[in-house]
Amino acid sequence: VLKYPNLKKLNTKSVNYANKGMTLENDIEISNIYYLNNNIACIHKKPTPVQIVKVEYPARNKAKITEAYYRVASTTDYNGVYKSRYIDFDAKECSSATSFSLNNVKEHQLKHLENVHLMGGIAFLIIKFNVYNEHYYVSYSFLKEYINNNKKKSISYNDIKANCHLIKYSLSPRLDYLSVIDQYLS
Amino acid sequence: VLKYPNLKKLNTKSVNYANKGMTLENDIEISNIYYLNNNIACIHKKPTPVQIVKVEYPARNKAKITEAYYRVASTTDYNGVYKSRYIDFDAKECSSATSFSLNNVKEHQLKHLENVHLMGGIAFLIIKFNVYNEHYYVSYSFLKEYINNNKKKSISYNDIKANCHLIKYSLSPRLDYLSVIDQYLS
Repeated sequence: VLKYPNLKKLNTKSVNYANKGMTLENDIEISNIYYLNNNIACIHKKPTPVQIVKVEYPARNKAKITEAYYRVASTTDYNGVYKSRYIDFDAKECSSATSFSLNNVKEHQLKHLENVHLMGGIAFLIIKFNVYNEHYYVSYSFLKEYINNNKKKSISYNDIKANCHLIKYSLSPRLDYLSVIDQYLS
Repeated sequence: VLKYPNLKKLNTKSVNYANKGMTLENDIEISNIYYLNNNIACIHKKPTPVQIVKVEYPARNKAKITEAYYRVASTTDYNGVYKSRYIDFDAKECSSATSFSLNNVKEHQLKHLENVHLMGGIAFLIIKFNVYNEHYYVSYSFLKEYINNNKKKSISYNDIKANCHLIKYSLSPRLDYLSVIDQYLS
């Protein structure tokens, strides 16, 4: 009887070890490469926006940036094309087991997703609950409705589980978020 | 009789002065803001990709990048959504009056435009002939066919003028490249 909880603990730990370093960004990158190599979709992460102030030229053809600052992005991190449609999303990791804090979604990101939605693009978030290693496709429509109808500063895990789509996590494609979109497109 | 050419020269000059500093990038930026503010399209320039090596924190909440390098972009500079469709393009200024050198289009940019085209996105170049202050919408299909059927390292101005679409240049929107796309979409 005593051994059961211990074994369970060990198993959980080993799963966690295996996933160490496998960030959400990494998983999306691997998925996007799979999509591109298989002519399924062309989706890229945007570079981090940087305000460049000073550039030096230690060698004739080598520019070295010696002073620069992070700028606030005016859009989300990912966009691209799938079946002619415009895809736009941001990826959020969530360490809480019970809720996703809406502080994680910045005002400009919401505004951008709203614009994309207005123009007929497919706008969403991928939210990963680290504790469960679960990834959810949270459409902008759901997000907007939730924010408009609730005074809360967070969405509970249960609400997301009940209303959003769990994204299949497998070997290849790692994180098949486009299969969720298929339900919308078809 | 002598005065005519002089007057003409003066007029040309004054037009050039008025446009000084009005780069192609600037014109596209102004157009994109117009499109966004009028709920026509949501199109943004991607940040310049930079490899960040060293970051210092002179103040607690202020990160200063002190060593970074330019990376080669894997995509084009502009993308976004118009009437649900994915739009992707790059902007090229051309100082020659007679031809556009294909050296201006990098291998990875062609590859990316090809990917976008394959996935059903709308891929093109905006080429500006500085001498004429003319902007052309050069579809990826045209570009691809030209490269496949010609051994030349450049496309003549006359070929572009005869086969591509002149983009209307006006006050607002400054550079109405989406009106060219309307001919494809409808």
